[in-house]
Amino acid sequence: MLINSENTICLKIAQESKGVVLVKNLYLSCDPYMCIPMKEFNISQGLLSSYTLGSPLTGYGVAKVVDSTYPNLKKGDLVWGTTGWEEYSLIANPASLFKIEHTDVPLSYYTGVLGVPGICAYFGFYEVCNPKPGERVYVSAASGAIGQLVGQFAKLMGSYVVGSAGSEEKVHLLKNKFGFDEAFNYKEEKDLAKALERYFPDGIDIYFENVGGKMLDAVMVNMRLRGRIAVCGMVSQYNLNQHEGVKNLMCLIEKTHPNGSKFLQTLLPYVKEGKITYVEDIAQGLESAPAALVGLFSGRNVGKQVVMVARD
Amino acid sequence: MLINSENTICLKIAQESKGVVLVKNLYLSCDPYMCIPMKEFNISQGLLSSYTLGSPLTGYGVAKVVDSTYPNLKKGDLVWGTTGWEEYSLIANPASLFKIEHTDVPLSYYTGVLGVPGICAYFGFYEVCNPKPGERVYVSAASGAIGQLVGQFAKLMGSYVVGSAGSEEKVHLLKNKFGFDEAFNYKEEKDLAKALERYFPDGIDIYFENVGGKMLDAVMVNMRLRGRIAVCGMVSQYNLNQHEGVKNLMCLIEKTHPNGSKFLQTLLPYVKEGKITYVEDIAQGLESAPAALVGLFSGRNVGKQVVMVARD
Repeated sequence: MLINSENTICLKIAQESKGVVLVKNLYLSCDPYMCIPMKEFNISQGLLSSYTLGSPLTGYGVAKVVDSTYPNLKKGDLVWGTTGWEEYSLIANPASLFKIEHTDVPLSYYTGVLGVPGICAYFGFYEVCNPKPGERVYVSAASGAIGQLVGQFAKLMGSYVVGSAGSEEKVHLLKNKFGFDEAFNYKEEKDLAKALERYFPDGIDIYFENVGGKMLDAVMVNMRLRGRIAVCGMVSQYNLNQHEGVKNLMCLIEKTHPNGSKFLQTLLPYVKEGKITYVEDIAQGLESAPAALVGLFSGRNVGKQVVMVARD
Repeated sequence: MLINSENTICLKIAQESKGVVLVKNLYLSCDPYMCIPMKEFNISQGLLSSYTLGSPLTGYGVAKVVDSTYPNLKKGDLVWGTTGWEEYSLIANPASLFKIEHTDVPLSYYTGVLGVPGICAYFGFYEVCNPKPGERVYVSAASGAIGQLVGQFAKLMGSYVVGSAGSEEKVHLLKNKFGFDEAFNYKEEKDLAKALERYFPDGIDIYFENVGGKMLDAVMVNMRLRGRIAVCGMVSQYNLNQHEGVKNLMCLIEKTHPNGSKFLQTLLPYVKEGKITYVEDIAQGLESAPAALVGLFSGRNVGKQVVMVARD
C-alpha cells in the first residue's frame, strides 16, 4: 500500500509476491451451500473447507483486477470466481478466477446465469437429466438462481414444467415471468406427495432437486419408470444438526427397468470359458420353496438361492 | 386334462384358449424383491402387483413347454421368465417367457447369471457405473446372485474390489472363489463407515448397492469425487414396516463437480436474445451481506441473491 501526494491510498502487491492478484470486489454471490463451511465439522470432509473464525467468508463473486503478478491477468481485467467478503481481496490462487470476456450483460450475471448457478442448471438439466421433449419436469426452489433457469430450459424443450416455491409472490413469478405451466406454494400443502400427484397425475419424468428432505421423499413415490433426478442442492437440510432421513429410496430400484439386450452375448462365453464363477444354493423340491425364500432374509443361502421343482 | 389308457394324466390346453402356454416348472428363483408384493400396500404402486391370497406366488423360473397355443413356443421348448410356484403353470401372458437357446450350461443358470440377476449385474455395473480400469469398487451382499457377478466383472477390468457379506463362510468365498481383493463380515463391524475407510483409505469410486439403509449412509461419506452408485437392491429394507431414513444424501451434491465447459456458449446467447429471463435480488453494500446470506434460509430473497459491493 502506498499513500500518494494527494493523500489517496494506492493498493499494490508487494514486489516479492509472485503469481497473486489483488482485486476490488464488485458483486458477491449469496449461495445456500455457504452455511456448510460455517460448521466446525462438515461431512464433505475437506471438499468445502471450513471458514476461519475472524477472517472474511469466501465465496463466488465478480471483481476487477487492481494489481497482478499473475501472468494471465492484468490491471483492469474483470474476473469472476472465488473471492473474499470484503472490499479488496488478495487472491493467492488466481487459477480459481475466470476472466470475463463479455461485458455487454450485467456483470452480476457472472454470479448467476453466467456463473456457477448457470453451470449447475445447464449440467444438471441437459447432462444429468438427459431430457426428451414432452417430458414432465418438476423443479423445487424454482424461483432461485438455478431453479428459474432449469424451468426455462425445460420450457424451451417443450416440456410440461411445474415449480414449487415458498410464497405467493414467487409462485406468481414462476407462472407469469418464467413461463412454468404450473406452480405451487409448498408451505400451503399438508401432503407434498398428494400435491405432486395433483400436478403430475401420470408421474414425474425429471425432478431437479434443490431442497431435499421431505420433498425428496414425496417426489420418490411420484417418479415415473425410468425417471431421472438431478441432485443439485438440499437447502432444507443445510442448517439442521441432524439431517432428515429419506425413506423412499427403494423407488430408485422399483422405477428402473434394466436394459438387458447385450448381456447374454457377454455372459454366456464368460460362463462357458470359466471366466466367471457362479455359485448356487439349490433347494430340492417344491415343498422346500417357502423356507428357501424366507432364508434369504436371514442370509441362510450361500450364493444364488434356487428351488429345483423337477429335473426335466 | 385327459386321462389316457395307461391311467396317466395328460395335460393339455383347452382348445378355445388361444395364445397361452402350459409349462412344467423345473427351477424357481428365490429373490429378495419377492417379499414386496407380499405386503398389502407397497410403494411401487402397481409395478410389482401384490400376490393373490390363496394363489401360488409368481416369480422367475425355468420351465419346459408341455402344450402351447402361442405361435412362438411349442411343446418341448425350454423357457425362462415369469411363472408360478407350482408344478405346472398355465401362462396367460407368454410374452414374458424367453426361449432358452443354449442348453450346454446348467438350466438353473437362467434364474441367475444368464437371467435377471445377470442382466442387473451387467447393466448396473457396465452401464450405470461406467467403470474405468483401476477404480476402487465396493459391493455389498457380495456373495449373492448379483454381487458375486459384479465383483468378478470388476476384477476382469483390473479394479480393486472389496465385498461384504454376513458370515465368515461367505467372506471366505469372496476372497478365495470369486477373487475379491478384500472382504469383510459386516455383522462384525461396529462402525460401518470406519470399516469402509479401512479398506478404502482414498475413498470408493463405485458402489454396487444391494442392501440400503445404514450401509448406504456409511458408503455416502466414503465416496470419492465423481463416484458412482448403482442402486440395485436394498434387502435390509424390504421387510421393515417403516424404512430406515438415509441421512447422508447431501454427499451426492458435495461429491460431484459439474463440468461447465459448454455452458457459456449456450447461455450467453440465450440471455442476450432474451430467451432466458433472469431475476436477481441485489442487496446494496457490503454491510448488507450477512443479512442477505441468512435471508436465503427463510426464503426472503426473490430470485438470485447478490450483494453489490461496488459498481466498478
